Formats: sequence, structure tokens, C-alpha cells
Amino acid sequence: MDLQTALQQLEALQQKQYAYRTASSALYLDGVTVAPRDTAEGRGVALGILAGEEHKLFSDPQVGALLTFLEGETTGLTPEQARQVQLLRRGYDQLSRIPAGEYMEYAQLTNQASDVWHRAKEASDFALFRPVLERLVAFQKKFAGYFDSTKAPYDALLNEYERGMTMEKLDRFFGVLRERLVPVIREIAGRPQIDDSFLHRSFPVEQQRKLSDYLMEVLGLDRAHCAIGETEHPFTLNFTSQDVRITTNYKEHDLADSMYSVIHEGGHALYELGVNPAYDYNCLAGGVSMGVHESQSRFYENLIGRSLPFIRAVFPRIRELFPQQLENVTAEDFYRAVNKAQPSLIRTEADELTYCFHVMIRYEIEKQLIGGTLEVKDIPQVWNALYRDYLGVEVPDDRRGCLQDSHWSGGSFGYFPSYALGSAYGVQMLRNMEREMDVWGPVGRGDLSAVTGWLRDRIHRYGCLLEPGEVVERACGPFDPTVYTDYLEDKYRRLYGLK
Amino acid sequence: MDLQTALQQLEALQQKQYAYRTASSALYLDGVTVAPRDTAEGRGVALGILAGEEHKLFSDPQVGALLTFLEGETTGLTPEQARQVQLLRRGYDQLSRIPAGEYMEYAQLTNQASDVWHRAKEASDFALFRPVLERLVAFQKKFAGYFDSTKAPYDALLNEYERGMTMEKLDRFFGVLRERLVPVIREIAGRPQIDDSFLHRSFPVEQQRKLSDYLMEVLGLDRAHCAIGETEHPFTLNFTSQDVRITTNYKEHDLADSMYSVIHEGGHALYELGVNPAYDYNCLAGGVSMGVHESQSRFYENLIGRSLPFIRAVFPRIRELFPQQLENVTAEDFYRAVNKAQPSLIRTEADELTYCFHVMIRYEIEKQLIGGTLEVKDIPQVWNALYRDYLGVEVPDDRRGCLQDSHWSGGSFGYFPSYALGSAYGVQMLRNMEREMDVWGPVGRGDLSAVTGWLRDRIHRYGCLLEPGEVVERACGPFDPTVYTDYLEDKYRRLYGLK
Repeated sequence: MDLQTALQQLEALQQKQYAYRTASSALYLDGVTVAPRDTAEGRGVALGILAGEEHKLFSDPQVGALLTFLEGETTGLTPEQARQVQLLRRGYDQLSRIPAGEYMEYAQLTNQASDVWHRAKEASDFALFRPVLERLVAFQKKFAGYFDSTKAPYDALLNEYERGMTMEKLDRFFGVLRERLVPVIREIAGRPQIDDSFLHRSFPVEQQRKLSDYLMEVLGLDRAHCAIGETEHPFTLNFTSQDVRITTNYKEHDLADSMYSVIHEGGHALYELGVNPAYDYNCLAGGVSMGVHESQSRFYENLIGRSLPFIRAVFPRIRELFPQQLENVTAEDFYRAVNKAQPSLIRTEADELTYCFHVMIRYEIEKQLIGGTLEVKDIPQVWNALYRDYLGVEVPDDRRGCLQDSHWSGGSFGYFPSYALGSAYGVQMLRNMEREMDVWGPVGRGDLSAVTGWLRDRIHRYGCLLEPGEVVERACGPFDPTVYTDYLEDKYRRLYGLK
Repeated sequence: MDLQTALQQLEALQQKQYAYRTASSALYLDGVTVAPRDTAEGRGVALGILAGEEHKLFSDPQVGALLTFLEGETTGLTPEQARQVQLLRRGYDQLSRIPAGEYMEYAQLTNQASDVWHRAKEASDFALFRPVLERLVAFQKKFAGYFDSTKAPYDALLNEYERGMTMEKLDRFFGVLRERLVPVIREIAGRPQIDDSFLHRSFPVEQQRKLSDYLMEVLGLDRAHCAIGETEHPFTLNFTSQDVRITTNYKEHDLADSMYSVIHEGGHALYELGVNPAYDYNCLAGGVSMGVHESQSRFYENLIGRSLPFIRAVFPRIRELFPQQLENVTAEDFYRAVNKAQPSLIRTEADELTYCFHVMIRYEIEKQLIGGTLEVKDIPQVWNALYRDYLGVEVPDDRRGCLQDSHWSGGSFGYFPSYALGSAYGVQMLRNMEREMDVWGPVGRGDLSAVTGWLRDRIHRYGCLLEPGEVVERACGPFDPTVYTDYLEDKYRRLYGLK
């Protein structure tokens, strides 16, 4: 084989990978947006077969031979090509360890599980979800061995979402959060609570859709390349750097819910839209890790979206859309209301301060589930006990308890810690950004272009060219969770007038 | 190879075909419904690659060998399996004549063409569409040779949509229509015109959506298996017999437009939903030909939907939705208005009587284009001249002229005659139905179950098990275009009080 032929094959291989993923994504998107209710079976059959074809293609020994050849040709490769070979090698080694039958069965299972989860959540019926969840957990334990048999199974899964992450590191990280934040939560409980009742008046969905359009405009999301849809659980999906979709979910009596989900998913979308378009159709496309992805979404959602300068900038338009509901409400009232800290039941609705406790609960459960010390049937009981212990709230039903998140139904175990890590990364990025430029002046005028420019320059454009750790190091410096806890302590001490 | 292994391979092959088509359909559906504007490129790359993979799979000589083996095992096959082998053989022989490169290029072209056509139509700019249309026509001429090199190119294309159809048969068919219907159109021109102005008042889209929901209910379309979306050009798409989508397009000042597009597409959907579910995931799934498909859609749209008994049944609900717009309008007024006959510009808005002339114009143009006696650049001029000759109307711009239909942008040449054939088939079906059961009593009560039951029994359930000609023969008896022209003459003579 000569180098040029090998490089053509490398490109063709990645284009095929892109095509299969695009097909699966389109089917998934259809399934959760416009597909009629009783149609999951047909999509499941198609997804299973496509996954099987993809598996066959990428576990073919010829792919292994191609990669081996290119690994010996390092001087002839661009840094991009070398990184592609490295990433494909990882995927190839992993995939070739998963038997094709298992891989297809798993693809069908996750499609079915998504449908079952939706029904189970609607009916608040964990028993309905339990059998598929048991199968999902069994698959994940097996996959963990395929991923890296030298690691503890849950470490192997964590490594998939954030390379190098371990239970040991997370236990330490969450330890710092617990130690620093529990006292703040306790002190707040003794103070007069912020009034956010005006956020729960009636906000017609039609008007909320207009607010979403406005927020997307402020975020600088180009609608010719980014659409918004509506789903049970909001998410971001990227086809290419030129085609990204976000979704939200409108609640008539909760203005902040959809507003902040749009800003959150908008952060994910900005990341995807900012990746070098030269990486479209190859494996450098897309965000590099879940932790870095969440650092971007939570950066826009909390550090920008819940800041006083940003709220001052967007509040006039919000009040224009809801003049009656927000009569006599000031930007400052709005700022305080959307930052109210209160232990609660639903992760996606949690405030910045208590949010990481929701993550910790899921982390503890996953650690035990994958580690084998917890059975699926006992999840509701353990879930409810941890909410009582960590947050002091009683879970009234599984819909608002262990059935609230879609992650497990999609086969994502080890993802949740990314939310907390991303939040911590984000604050370190903000501090560096503040040292280098005027952040709050432009944000206060509703101009996010400089902020997005900084993030694009340090993070977005690289796509998967660099390892997540490298990206984080460049944008944040060395990881230091106290930067995050300092930020939260300071913000909430001011908000609640603590000493 | 033993028979059982061969049959397993036969099933697996068809499931793969299903999976690739499902993927392409999902991408297409996304592209014309919710995808952001500037995202066609990425879908085109994916569609091209998927088409290439599918092509590789089905032009593999192993498939040929499998089919040859099964063709020698006729006694061991069920009638369904024997028919699958027959259909796959046709597809295999055809596909293996198309070079993979051309096939992929064509898949990318049709995706791009759909996007270009949308823009060209919006801007009424034929010059924008012309280059891709030229490429499409060139492909179609080449494909015609691959399909059947013993036939004239346009006959080879016609045969794809309606097996056995030829220019000779169509010239005869359209000759009868011209001879019988032109005098009726001329006589009507001398009579006072029906007043349909109330159909063009302001009908808010929100209310029109409710009308669609109601019509889908009356048609007996199960919403758990059939969704409705909104697109520029309405269409029906089937994933399986359990998952069918229809689309419509609302015009504020034209109540009948979306109403009858919903009933038309609903007819297509009832066909797809009525196919034996045992044919899901194999090549017997779906409607058997475009002519038979249009016989169903136009049956519901015109023979049922534009009948007085049906309108009497649904009018109370329509007036409930639009009380002000339809004040003082009776069911009989509504019946007359939606049946007004008047030469016009837009095929999809044409009345039953003049409709086939729109089809004839497209037929004449396609015949010459594929036959090589007309160049793409001359289409607008010929189009406009034919509209003047056949219908006596002046085409003011290409948007309302030769850019109005999506068919050519999707690579469909030879499809249009199916609309006229289907209309003729439908009337013969109705006459047979009337001989066997009470059609109009239940329809007058808004109950279409017996009508749909009859069609399901004679047509729908067979899917592709029988040849189109066989299905038509069973449901219609021998083809006789005068049954259709008698129906039209009788209906319009009464409506306009001709002698």
C-alpha cells in the first residue's frame, strides 16, 4: 500500500462513519420530535441493522491493517491526520472487542429503552422501565470490560466521557464541593427566601417561543445553521459544524425553565458550530468530551445567563414579551429570582448551588450499580434516601425521582459527573477570560461576540484535535475545584446577605 | 447452499434494504421539514455515501448467486418468498447495470436539486434550477438505458412507475380524455360561473390545523401511526405499515387547498397503513405502483372528498371551526364551490375536470425531454405555450409555471401520467364498489370504514405481492377510460346545468 492510497482510504472510512452516524441521528431526532407514538419498533429495526453494518465496516481487519500502516508513516501525516489515526485506533480496538451481535442488540435496546423510559416517566412507573434498565446495566458492565479490562468497570465508563477521569479523582472533587458548599446551603436555609413567584405566573407557550428566538439571536446562533425543536428532555444534536439542532420543553408556569434550557443547549450548539469546518465528515468533528461540552453549556447558562449584566441586557425584551406577568418586576428582581437557591427534586431545574448535589447522587448510584453493589430494583429506594440525606427533600414519585433523566435510557452511564466537572472548568475559564479582556462591559450590552470568540479560539475550533485534558489545561490552567467553590460561595453569600 | 440458509440471507438482505431506505427517508423528511436552511450539503454527503453502500451491497455478485439459487428452488418457496425473489431480481439486474459512482453522484444530485428547486421556485428563477435539471435529465436518459435498453427511453421510465405502461397507451388514453372533455370545458365557459369567493376569506392557520386533525379522524387515520407535518409541497412518506407521515401546506386565503391536500395524502397514507404488516422490512412492503397509489389518494380526495354526501357529513364541523367566514354558507354551496371548474395555473389546485390537462402538459414535455426533441432551456417557453393551447391561461412566472412541482427535482420523470391513470382507475373502483355495497349511506354519515375496508381488501393489503396490472384488474375490471370520462361529464353537466 502507498501512502496516498492509505490516506484516501482513511478519508473514505471516516466519511462512512459520518454517514452512519448522521443516519442514526436523524432517526433518533425524528423519534423524539415528530414521529407518531407507536412507531419505535420500525426505527429500532433500522437502527439495529445500521449499527450492525457500521460495526462490520469498522471491525474489519482491513481497517486494522490500514491503521497499522499509517501508524508507521508518522512523518508523512499532518497533525490532523495523525490525530485521526490515533482516535480511529482507539475506536477500532474497542469496537473489535464488541461482538457484532451484541453491538446490534444494544443499538436496538437503546432505541426501545428510550420509548419505554418515556412511557414509564409519564406513568411514574419504575417497574415498567426496570427490565430494560437491567439489560442496559448488564450491557454497560460488559462494555466496560471491552473498553478497558485493566480498569474498574465504572472507571472504564468514566474514561469514555472524560479521558483520564477516575472514581478516585471524582471522590476528591465531590469531597471538596461537599465540604465547602454544605455549610452555605445550611446558612441560606436560615435566611429569608428570595421571592420568585412571578416566574410561575402563566406564560403562554407562543410567547415563550418568541423568547427562545430572541435568546438564540443574543447568543449569536445562526438560524440558517441551527434549528430549535421541542422534546420531553432538551438536548443538542450536531450533524456537522454547519448543522446543529437544539431542543427545549416549554412549561406554561415556569418561565425560567425553558429560558435557561435554551441558553444551556445554545452553549452546546455554539461549541459545535465553532469547530473548524475542515473537520466535518472526519473524526475530529464535534466537541471533544462531555466535560468540556458541559463546561460550554453551563458557562452560557450560569456564568453568563444568570449574571446580573446579562439579565440587565435581556430583561427589557423579556418584559416586552410578558408585560402583564412581569409588571413591577425589575431586572434585579429577575436576577435574584433565577438565582434562588433551594434544595429541590429535579436536576435540570436546580439552581447553581445545589446542582452538584444532584450530580453526586447519580454518581453514587452509578458507581454502585456498575460496581455491582446495587441492583436495579433498589434504585428508587436508594435514590430517595440520597435525596433525603444530601438535599433534605422527600421524593414523592419516580417521575420526579429516578425516572427524571433520559441518560440511562440512552445507555449513558458515567456521563453525569461531566456536568459538575464542566461547571468547575467553566469558572476557571471565566477567571482567565476576565484577566485577558473586558467580559462584562459587552455582556451588559447584550453582546456575547467577544466571549464566544475567546471560547472559540481556546476550545471550540479544535474539535477533537486535542485531548480533553489539553483543552481544559489551555483554557483553565491546572484544575482547581476551589476556584469553582469560591465563585459559588461568593455569589450566594452576596445574594443571601450572609456574613 | 441449503434452502434454509438461502432464505435467511434473503430476509437479511431485505432488512438491510429497509434500513438504508429508512435512513434516507429520515434524512429527506428532516431536510424538508425542520432542518435549518443552509444544511443541505451535509445531508447530501451522507445520502451519497449511504446510497453507495446500499449499491455495493445489492450489486454484489453474491446477491445474484443467491437469487439464482432461489429461482431454482421454486417449490420450496411460499408465494410471498417467490415474489420477493422476482422483485429483487428486477432490482438487482437494474442496479448492477448502474455504476456505483454514477449511483452515488445521482443520490447527491437529487438532494442538492431539492434544495436548489426550493430556492428557484421561491425566487421564480428557472435559470437557477436549469443546470441541475440538465444534469437530472442527462442521468434519467442514461438510467432509462440501464432500466431497459430494448425500450424507447421514456417508455423505460414509464415502466418504472407503472409496469407495462407505454407512450402508445398513454397517447390513446389522453386522446379519449381530450375528445370527451374539451367540449365540456368549452360549454362550461359559456355558463355562469360558480361563486367560491367564501373559500378565499381569511382562515387562520391554527384553525386549519384543527380541521386537518378532524379530517384525519374522519378518514380513520390512527395518529399513533400517522403524523402530519408541514412542507412546501405536500407528500406522504412511509417507513413501515405502522409508521406513515403526511404533510400539508396551509394558505391563509385558501381553505380548500390544505383541506383537499390532507384528504389526498390521507388516501396515500391509508393505502400504506393497510398493507399486510407481515411485509414490513421486506420488499413486499408499500404500495405497488404510482398509478395505484394515485388511484387511492384521488379516490379519497375527489370521489369521496368532493362528493355531496361527504361534504354534508363534514360541513357542520367545518362551519364550527370557521363560523364567521362561512356564515350563510350551506353544505350545498360548499359542494359547488370545491367543485368549481376553471382552467388554472397550478396542478395541485386544479379541479377534477381540468386536472388531467395539467398532467398531459407535463407528459408532453417529459416525452420530448427524454426523447431528446426538447432542451431543458426551452421548458419554460414550451410549458407556457401548452398552458395557452390546452387551458387558455397565460403563465405569469415560472413559480406558477414549470417550477411549481417538486417531481423533477427528485428525479421523477414518468410519474405524472400516474395521476391521470389513478383518477381513471378510481372511478372504475367506485362503480364496482357501488355494485357490491351501500357506499353513500355510510359516507353521508361521515363513516368511511366500509369504503376503506373494501379498498383494503382489494388493494391495500397486497402491498407489492401482485403486479400493478393484476391489482387494477381485480379492483376495476378491464381498463376503460370512458368510465372515467362518463363520470366527469355527468358530474360537471349537472353542476353547471348543461343539457
